[in-house]
Amino acid sequence: MHSTMPDVPLTVAHLLRHGYTVHSTSTVATWNGDGFDRRSYAEVGERAARLAHALRGLGVRPGSRPDSEQGVVGTFMRNNARHLELFLAVPAMGAVLHTLNVRMPAAQLAYTVDHAGDEVVFVDADLTEALAPVLERSANAVKHIVVAGRGGRAALAGFSGEVHDYEELIADEPTDYPWEDRLDEHTAASICYTSGTTGKPKGVVYSHRSLYLHCLRVVTPDNYSLSTRDVLFPVAPMFHVQGWGVPHAALLTGADLVLADQFTQPSSLARVIERGRVTFGVAVPTVWSALLEELDTHDYDVTSLRRAFVGGFACPPALMAAYRDRHSIELLHGWGMTETLGMVSAARPPRGADRSEEWVYRVSQGRFPASVEFRLVGSDGDLLPHTGMAVGELQLRGLNVTTAYYGGAASPPARPAQNFTADGWLRTGDVGKITPDGFLILTDRIKDVIKSGGEFISSVELENTLMAHPAVAEAVVVAVPDDRWGERPMAAVSLRHGVDIALEDLRDFLAQRIDGWMVPERWTVVPTVPKTSVGKYDKRGLQDQYADGRLDVVHIDKSPQGVSQTGGGGARH
Amino acid sequence: MHSTMPDVPLTVAHLLRHGYTVHSTSTVATWNGDGFDRRSYAEVGERAARLAHALRGLGVRPGSRPDSEQGVVGTFMRNNARHLELFLAVPAMGAVLHTLNVRMPAAQLAYTVDHAGDEVVFVDADLTEALAPVLERSANAVKHIVVAGRGGRAALAGFSGEVHDYEELIADEPTDYPWEDRLDEHTAASICYTSGTTGKPKGVVYSHRSLYLHCLRVVTPDNYSLSTRDVLFPVAPMFHVQGWGVPHAALLTGADLVLADQFTQPSSLARVIERGRVTFGVAVPTVWSALLEELDTHDYDVTSLRRAFVGGFACPPALMAAYRDRHSIELLHGWGMTETLGMVSAARPPRGADRSEEWVYRVSQGRFPASVEFRLVGSDGDLLPHTGMAVGELQLRGLNVTTAYYGGAASPPARPAQNFTADGWLRTGDVGKITPDGFLILTDRIKDVIKSGGEFISSVELENTLMAHPAVAEAVVVAVPDDRWGERPMAAVSLRHGVDIALEDLRDFLAQRIDGWMVPERWTVVPTVPKTSVGKYDKRGLQDQYADGRLDVVHIDKSPQGVSQTGGGGARH
Repeated sequence: MHSTMPDVPLTVAHLLRHGYTVHSTSTVATWNGDGFDRRSYAEVGERAARLAHALRGLGVRPGSRPDSEQGVVGTFMRNNARHLELFLAVPAMGAVLHTLNVRMPAAQLAYTVDHAGDEVVFVDADLTEALAPVLERSANAVKHIVVAGRGGRAALAGFSGEVHDYEELIADEPTDYPWEDRLDEHTAASICYTSGTTGKPKGVVYSHRSLYLHCLRVVTPDNYSLSTRDVLFPVAPMFHVQGWGVPHAALLTGADLVLADQFTQPSSLARVIERGRVTFGVAVPTVWSALLEELDTHDYDVTSLRRAFVGGFACPPALMAAYRDRHSIELLHGWGMTETLGMVSAARPPRGADRSEEWVYRVSQGRFPASVEFRLVGSDGDLLPHTGMAVGELQLRGLNVTTAYYGGAASPPARPAQNFTADGWLRTGDVGKITPDGFLILTDRIKDVIKSGGEFISSVELENTLMAHPAVAEAVVVAVPDDRWGERPMAAVSLRHGVDIALEDLRDFLAQRIDGWMVPERWTVVPTVPKTSVGKYDKRGLQDQYADGRLDVVHIDKSPQGVSQTGGGGARH
Repeated sequence: MHSTMPDVPLTVAHLLRHGYTVHSTSTVATWNGDGFDRRSYAEVGERAARLAHALRGLGVRPGSRPDSEQGVVGTFMRNNARHLELFLAVPAMGAVLHTLNVRMPAAQLAYTVDHAGDEVVFVDADLTEALAPVLERSANAVKHIVVAGRGGRAALAGFSGEVHDYEELIADEPTDYPWEDRLDEHTAASICYTSGTTGKPKGVVYSHRSLYLHCLRVVTPDNYSLSTRDVLFPVAPMFHVQGWGVPHAALLTGADLVLADQFTQPSSLARVIERGRVTFGVAVPTVWSALLEELDTHDYDVTSLRRAFVGGFACPPALMAAYRDRHSIELLHGWGMTETLGMVSAARPPRGADRSEEWVYRVSQGRFPASVEFRLVGSDGDLLPHTGMAVGELQLRGLNVTTAYYGGAASPPARPAQNFTADGWLRTGDVGKITPDGFLILTDRIKDVIKSGGEFISSVELENTLMAHPAVAEAVVVAVPDDRWGERPMAAVSLRHGVDIALEDLRDFLAQRIDGWMVPERWTVVPTVPKTSVGKYDKRGLQDQYADGRLDVVHIDKSPQGVSQTGGGGARH
């Protein structure tokens, strides 16, 4: 039987048009350090149209089919209104948006520019110095640089192509555009490269359909829960997995959008929340952690913010509890990765859970949505039961779970065995367990698990326990080589501002809460824990510093045998 | 550029599987008049699997492509757990579900059974007597009748095919089934016939994709706003536009589902809400109106119910205000029709609206979602501006707006000019205006508009004003022939229980609130306003009664000219 329903594709053009028509009076506000530069969605629509015309003028080719040779437009930008215009205009005109991670090393960035085939790159004026070495290293596919904002031109003196000013480029263009709202929804809309600590960056290509469905999913009450009454603050960079769906969700719901531009230090974030009357934000745990210190020690009115999302990597329960107890802000915990178009699972407690059960659910990574299959695989390749006890690697397949990495214009998609199983599941690299009622509890990254004497120690568990100590701002635990046990955990902690505590006391705090054989012997205090380009703890960097003898490590060993490992788990070793 | 995202279809099988795995402990509870018969989603999944095997055994053919010759399974059932199993199993196995409107006349029902090509019809035991005349009138395509529940077999003695018992049919089947989760998402999942008051019923065929996307849309905060913590009560029949998306939304979110079966009188609905701790319900205005009378006059604890949806046709603001003021229940107003797969627009006030503005937004029909285009067309065919003033017919196209009616197995889809414009827009038959910020305000059905002396009178406006009077339970205004003005409005009112009031006082109440020339001269009191099979006011029936002289009509004429029309709008006539 033939359905009488129309074949209407799900496209970014629909989100854009919905925003500038039905929600024409909603606004995007960009912080300028002192106040907001505010623009209505009607204006965003007009400027996006002008931008699309200008891009056509620069030779960017639109496409409406998955096999079209579409033009690729790079952005080397922060979270601001112009970046939002590119976010919408580039896919809606049928080209591909490539959001460059401004914190990635230049050599890796140059690789992604060449691999994706960027013809035009947009850059914020204060980032031109960071972009210049990328252009120097790239193989010159880029023909145009468009600078957004004043200044910054000098750094581009060595660029052989044309340099334009954003406002001049779009100034004389028409304010409407025949958006590609009938294109094949499987057509590419954007590409995002993972910032792998090893190997070359790997590109994931999102289709219009996948962006639209992700956006529709994240606004639901069991996920972000966003409505037209919200004021959204994507603290997470827009270059990181499409700003975690928040920019698109703003257009879909008509919620206002608030952006911090280059003002990403905790005091600025607090000010933006206060002045923007923000109702919802998304960020990684380390950003929420830094903001917490600011909120604890200064006087801001952040009462508009009652809920926010924390993801990117596991959030310490102590951080969630601190926000709840001290600022009445509920941090929603979830999980996702570049390969899944951001957020997949979200930790909403089920109906009927009492207060203590609620908390157990909240600190988990949450439940998976419909159309996503998930499984746990043991180190021997066996499927593990979802008992909440068995620990294995999380593997996924289904809606918006990538099946490959982009191979480049002339190559087929890549499916490295390290990332994909032979039967087509994505290997997430995350290790954890799943409860009978479907909640994911991650215990580590595969590469961060500490293999001590044939047993596994979860670095995340030790970190979370340490961070529950009031003196600790951040804690990171990494594997270091050990003659006797192969590997042992080393703890690096940064202390809260103005606090002093003996490492021995922290060691005892930990020993009272976890099995004795897991307690680290090696301890170090760091001013701040080093982070990767997306804000994760840089565990590789810390291991390198240890190997090079650059850390001031204190040995604390209280076990009779000389290593505490046998203390609590003798039978196991 | 090729997307690396997988082509995962959106299917009912995904909703089913998500429900019985991730939300296996959520329940569907069917009221038995005394308590609930409760079943977990895990059991629903197992019983759906058994049902699918049994249907294969009866010869129902699955299909996985839009051009497959799929088997069609009819249901002549109320809202209960077995109907839910059919709702899920039939599409998830690749067959087509045809939900029969149990209140439609037998001749029309027989037409739909033959037109859709039902091979098997499931019927609740107490509805077999109503089904028998349908089968007698049908052209015998039905080979199997499956009776759900005890008794009722005698009425089917004249049926030439096989009669089965639901529980016996599925008893020995396996509890898992290879669901069609990889079918083409444009494949037909279900068919629903409109109960047009004139002409033959017209079938709209919903695809898997359309059901899934509708379900994802209605759970969002600007629409129903449903989460895993809800207890959902679809008072609207499951045979009416897929239960307005509520059954599917329950599986998607893991919310509990509560069903009233045959106990649809107001006292039972109140009891079900109380005992089931219902948090959200959907129903037409006339059902909410009857329930209000029950809640006002009896003592129920309905504190669990804080919000509900009212749609199907325009809800009187006085009814919404009564729920808000007397029971702290927020009725969310919205709009949709069979041709749009139910709910499309929803009246959530925008951010920043003050209390009085909020109310103006709440009583509107709300805003349209992304991917749906809307326009107002004047009687001369001109497009009207969205000023909130210009009144015209609402026309739609886009996601989940049907482009045709089902033509039958051997015929092409039908696109009658009465229902579709030449350029492919759906003519909704609803008349109203649209505000600059995108809110729809309906003033009438095209066929119900009263054309008096060349001017239009909105029957809905008169009804809403009358229903704001405390003595009035329901009011309906219809056009009746008038020698001088062509048509004039006639008001029929039913009074609240135990209340008495002179019609002249009601007439004065109205005259103080609307233009004098619109005030009806003809008045009648009816015990209850007659309703159609989906609960709408039966205006045709009332007009027939008037024409036949079966109504006791009082003439009240206070204008100097003999007809009040010239009193307030002399210049206009």
